[in-house]
Amino acid sequence: MVFKLNNHLLSRIASSNGHGEDSPYFDGWKAYDSNPHHLTENPNGVIQMGLAENQLCYDLIQEWLKKNPKASICTSEGLNEFREIAIFQDYHGLQEFRNAVANFMTKVRGNNNITFDPDRIVMSGGATGAHETIAFCLADPGEAFLVPTPYYPGFDRDLRWRTGVKLIPVDCDSSNNFKVTREALENAYEMAQLDDVKVKGLLITNPSNPLGTILDRETLRSIVSFINERNIHLVCDEIYAATVFSQPDFISIAEIIQDDIECNRDLVHIVYSLSKDMGFPGFRVGIIYSYNDAVMSCARKMSSFGLVSTQTQYLIASMLSDNEFVEKFIRENKRRLAARYRVFTYGLGQVGIKCLKTSNAGLFCWMDLSGLLKEKTLKAEMELWQVIIHEVKLNVSPGCSFHCLEPGWFRVCFANMDDQTMQVALSRIRTFVNNKVDNKKPKKNLRWQGSLKLINSPRIYDDFINSPHSPMPQSPLVRART
Amino acid sequence: MVFKLNNHLLSRIASSNGHGEDSPYFDGWKAYDSNPHHLTENPNGVIQMGLAENQLCYDLIQEWLKKNPKASICTSEGLNEFREIAIFQDYHGLQEFRNAVANFMTKVRGNNNITFDPDRIVMSGGATGAHETIAFCLADPGEAFLVPTPYYPGFDRDLRWRTGVKLIPVDCDSSNNFKVTREALENAYEMAQLDDVKVKGLLITNPSNPLGTILDRETLRSIVSFINERNIHLVCDEIYAATVFSQPDFISIAEIIQDDIECNRDLVHIVYSLSKDMGFPGFRVGIIYSYNDAVMSCARKMSSFGLVSTQTQYLIASMLSDNEFVEKFIRENKRRLAARYRVFTYGLGQVGIKCLKTSNAGLFCWMDLSGLLKEKTLKAEMELWQVIIHEVKLNVSPGCSFHCLEPGWFRVCFANMDDQTMQVALSRIRTFVNNKVDNKKPKKNLRWQGSLKLINSPRIYDDFINSPHSPMPQSPLVRART
Repeated sequence: MVFKLNNHLLSRIASSNGHGEDSPYFDGWKAYDSNPHHLTENPNGVIQMGLAENQLCYDLIQEWLKKNPKASICTSEGLNEFREIAIFQDYHGLQEFRNAVANFMTKVRGNNNITFDPDRIVMSGGATGAHETIAFCLADPGEAFLVPTPYYPGFDRDLRWRTGVKLIPVDCDSSNNFKVTREALENAYEMAQLDDVKVKGLLITNPSNPLGTILDRETLRSIVSFINERNIHLVCDEIYAATVFSQPDFISIAEIIQDDIECNRDLVHIVYSLSKDMGFPGFRVGIIYSYNDAVMSCARKMSSFGLVSTQTQYLIASMLSDNEFVEKFIRENKRRLAARYRVFTYGLGQVGIKCLKTSNAGLFCWMDLSGLLKEKTLKAEMELWQVIIHEVKLNVSPGCSFHCLEPGWFRVCFANMDDQTMQVALSRIRTFVNNKVDNKKPKKNLRWQGSLKLINSPRIYDDFINSPHSPMPQSPLVRART
Repeated sequence: MVFKLNNHLLSRIASSNGHGEDSPYFDGWKAYDSNPHHLTENPNGVIQMGLAENQLCYDLIQEWLKKNPKASICTSEGLNEFREIAIFQDYHGLQEFRNAVANFMTKVRGNNNITFDPDRIVMSGGATGAHETIAFCLADPGEAFLVPTPYYPGFDRDLRWRTGVKLIPVDCDSSNNFKVTREALENAYEMAQLDDVKVKGLLITNPSNPLGTILDRETLRSIVSFINERNIHLVCDEIYAATVFSQPDFISIAEIIQDDIECNRDLVHIVYSLSKDMGFPGFRVGIIYSYNDAVMSCARKMSSFGLVSTQTQYLIASMLSDNEFVEKFIRENKRRLAARYRVFTYGLGQVGIKCLKTSNAGLFCWMDLSGLLKEKTLKAEMELWQVIIHEVKLNVSPGCSFHCLEPGWFRVCFANMDDQTMQVALSRIRTFVNNKVDNKKPKKNLRWQGSLKLINSPRIYDDFINSPHSPMPQSPLVRART
């Protein structure tokens, strides 16, 4: 007997493609997965520059783990805790875990008189789960959040997919380095009003993904005034807080509302995570820090759908309550990111590629390739992206996948690979751009040699190439996708 | 300036109490948390018998961990894997993890020609997350699942709260030991039709929580015929599969649809977890095993909201692929549960308390206290419960919290405490029942002495009391709730 499943047997959510996986952002990952680069085993493969991973400081973590065998319930030193930890499932989380996370959040924000109350730390399944939880708490289906562009493509999944909430882009552009202006916010808000869509909040990402910029004090104040006057929520995604690698320093929304400006704190909510700042995306440590008691209480109940494994809570509790380690990690992480950024943008600069100049954070550059476009359209951007991914074989992410209206911008990640792979990537970019500029040569498929010559090292490379932190050349993502 | 948050600023979900925490089931936990029993430090406290935890086999797990230091990325033996594991965030999960879980699921189900395909294993944040995910995949807001009563109170949160899906009780009663009959299913289905509610599926729990019973082959066949004829889904919660401690053996729905009966497999979905069978609720390992490709694919995308920590995936992958350990664990777990069940129900029997006689699984008994009710009403059941929790100081769960219509049933958990605490609990029950029966004495608050005399041990206790597996006397829940 043959059975056929009618589509109406599934939910609308399951029958639609609201997940948003049909985006060049995720398509690029698939292109990488089907032919991943490896320095020796697959030198002609696609290099993954579409994944904002922080692989530069694992040696510090491994060193700490060796010194702290009691931090794991699976070592003979920590084993006595196994039972108590494995069985612990309270949605408040381990007190020690909350203390340690609050401590880390404070230190990452430079101790600027900010304090985070451990009892307000709410767990979630990564920042992904945190954003969905916040959306479930704050908005009904059909209601909306404003989001300045360009923004992280995953937000379309996280905040919208299962909640039915809408995201309304606040258009920003390069004329002022993608600054979030009061005018742009007001425009977006008013457009929503005209469309009869109820705006429940504003979502900002600070530091910005994909821009790698931070919001200055004046902008933050203006944002807080805006949401306060409109009586809407402000959700601040600060998951890249510890990646600010050069001046000016990061300013958390916590500092603004604590000392700087009067506002209704019940409207303010921070999303945090250890995926970027510590480089632990696999551990799924997402945090909601809400100043609103009702939201905190509701989010905590919702955290039952995505609690952090107590095995991981226990480890993180030990690691992040070690102040000496935390301070060293934060310092060294910044130093290494700064070095990588310098080398990478220097390499791009050598062939005339500029990145957003105000960037001083994140695990990526916002790269301006508008000069390589056939015409100034998003269609041309996609065409260029197709060439970059299939011929240059670099998985970078086109601006349109971040809802950027201005064609020619690309996000390129630089902290998820070792030094050598980065050099291969730069070398490919160099060849590609030179080919493009030198139009005499007929266009052809580029092939990369296994033993690429390294470009002449300028002085800036010296202390970098010999560094001990050489991340694995290949993301493990591919394994489970085969 | 004083600000006031208007309620309409939050979502309907956050403003309502759909979470279901206002239930005697959860109230009992709170009563325990505010005054938790401890053998020496708080001998008059409330004993937690409302938590279905499996604490009887931790010694086996600790022994295995000692022998397998490579199973953890936090030991010097396993440390080299740290980077690769911490960074792994593919929603498919580690291949080794899926293989190991599929292997364990097969072994737990007695290898009866059942095979589970590792590529169909979808992760979720515990069974809690698994149920919500399934509801999101299968039903739109307002649509419904049928659920035979009595059922786990958490389902009201898991399947309904954020999805807007409804649960329709299928009333079962003690006249046939709470069997799920075709007639009861048809009645509930037709009532829903009359109410104009679209039924999208049937949710069964096998083994049953709270009954501790398993579904026989005939019932399973009848259930499959029912859903197949109606063209609705069947969700089978089998999270207690390894707790079947005596004959007859457990029969998984996998066996029925694989060999036994023709049906549209696209309609069948299994929810699994390691929280009960392995006793790891803190690790949040929930599994969805759907025979429907579209549901599997959608659920996998949704798993991004509640992935299992890769640290935990890695440990579980090692542990559950060790067949010698797995077989020993399954065998010994059954043996110890059987012993605990015998001792506990024997103790209850001594004062005339009967439990559901068809029970041979789970971490609890379904206890009949109808003889102690003032009258045969749910109000009287709640009054009796108030006495038990506040005077006898045992947190047991009243039948009404499981949507049981027949007054006087209580679920009492027996595997979340050590032998001595269980004896204290039995002693309290004995005194209470004897006081109740002996009506001459005036009613008074009962106080428990720190050094309670153990009852005379019948032979059945002997090999039990001297066992090496003495779980901690106090749930850690209390710590994070203070």
